[in-house]
Amino acid sequence: MTGKFPDTVINRLTLYHCILIDYIKNNLENITSSAIASLLRIDDSQVRKDISLLKNTGKSRVGYNVLELKQSIEKTLGFERPKNAFIVGAGNLGMALANYNNFQDYGLNVVALFDNDKNKIGNKIKEKQIYDIEKLPELAKKLNIEMAILTVPMAAAQDIANFLVKSNIKYIWNFSPTVLAIPKEVEVWNENLMGNFLQFSYKIGK
Amino acid sequence: MTGKFPDTVINRLTLYHCILIDYIKNNLENITSSAIASLLRIDDSQVRKDISLLKNTGKSRVGYNVLELKQSIEKTLGFERPKNAFIVGAGNLGMALANYNNFQDYGLNVVALFDNDKNKIGNKIKEKQIYDIEKLPELAKKLNIEMAILTVPMAAAQDIANFLVKSNIKYIWNFSPTVLAIPKEVEVWNENLMGNFLQFSYKIGK
Repeated sequence: MTGKFPDTVINRLTLYHCILIDYIKNNLENITSSAIASLLRIDDSQVRKDISLLKNTGKSRVGYNVLELKQSIEKTLGFERPKNAFIVGAGNLGMALANYNNFQDYGLNVVALFDNDKNKIGNKIKEKQIYDIEKLPELAKKLNIEMAILTVPMAAAQDIANFLVKSNIKYIWNFSPTVLAIPKEVEVWNENLMGNFLQFSYKIGK
Repeated sequence: MTGKFPDTVINRLTLYHCILIDYIKNNLENITSSAIASLLRIDDSQVRKDISLLKNTGKSRVGYNVLELKQSIEKTLGFERPKNAFIVGAGNLGMALANYNNFQDYGLNVVALFDNDKNKIGNKIKEKQIYDIEKLPELAKKLNIEMAILTVPMAAAQDIANFLVKSNIKYIWNFSPTVLAIPKEVEVWNENLMGNFLQFSYKIGK
């Protein structure tokens, strides 16, 4: 595989991966493109086209081998190179993400959480410690962490983002509903939940 | 405006909207397409193209009028027709979404939450009551609610989704990391957080 897949393909591949995990749990060996297509309400031809971009997909007369297709997706998307990250903001959203049961399966390793609330600092969630936000620069350096998942309230987001940049964080996954001004050398991914909702509500016309 | 915008345009319009809210807070009257483009790290021409699809955007020599552009986006995306929804699952993620400070601004009105945990039932979050999940069919009918935001753990997601379908819920925004088997007459939007993360991590090649 050379070149890069578009975002839409990556997104579909992760959904195929979800379905494959379900099949494996149910001890099913093979899956057809039409079974995947039907669950996701997309075209069969789209599924076959996406999968044709992968290597070693275990295609046979009865469909794809579930384990081989799963491995092929994982290899393509780089699950085998885990990414370490801090969660910044131990509110409900930060806690939900720390709890999210399949981050680790997808190669995302949450190392610790940070907050400025003295009632939260020192607590643990899923064996991950919540630290004082002031400790972040030191721990980022010591543990060589370059990625932060930003889940602080909107009003604090820009200040904290500036602090992350100063702390040599290079990749920010921003869950706060605001667009951050960040120097070009730091990569930002805006997790635009309202935008996602509006795509849905616009589509259904309700 | 006739026809439908693609998902990617809708998503960008909501990000422009975020930026406009920030400008209004800072008492700025006008915004240029290049200011928006620079914050979002996209092409100026893309921003101008998206905005040209809208009506009454208040374009002038010094850029777009912030208030008019904001209103135009809201009108296009249908913010003025609020959608009522239940949150199903009052764990960290459900609570985070109930707390999410700008859902209401975007025309999404969370009416109540549901859970099966007796320690949570009866509590309130942001003046929204947490009810026993068994009460959902009755309340959905009484309040005419057709949309559910599904935030239960993955293992329970399919069972609860079946229950929602039986309760005449017509639109499901699914946050559980699994692909649900749902009858065709019910619309599902899979909020694929891992897929989003993998797009990010794939893009940055880390």
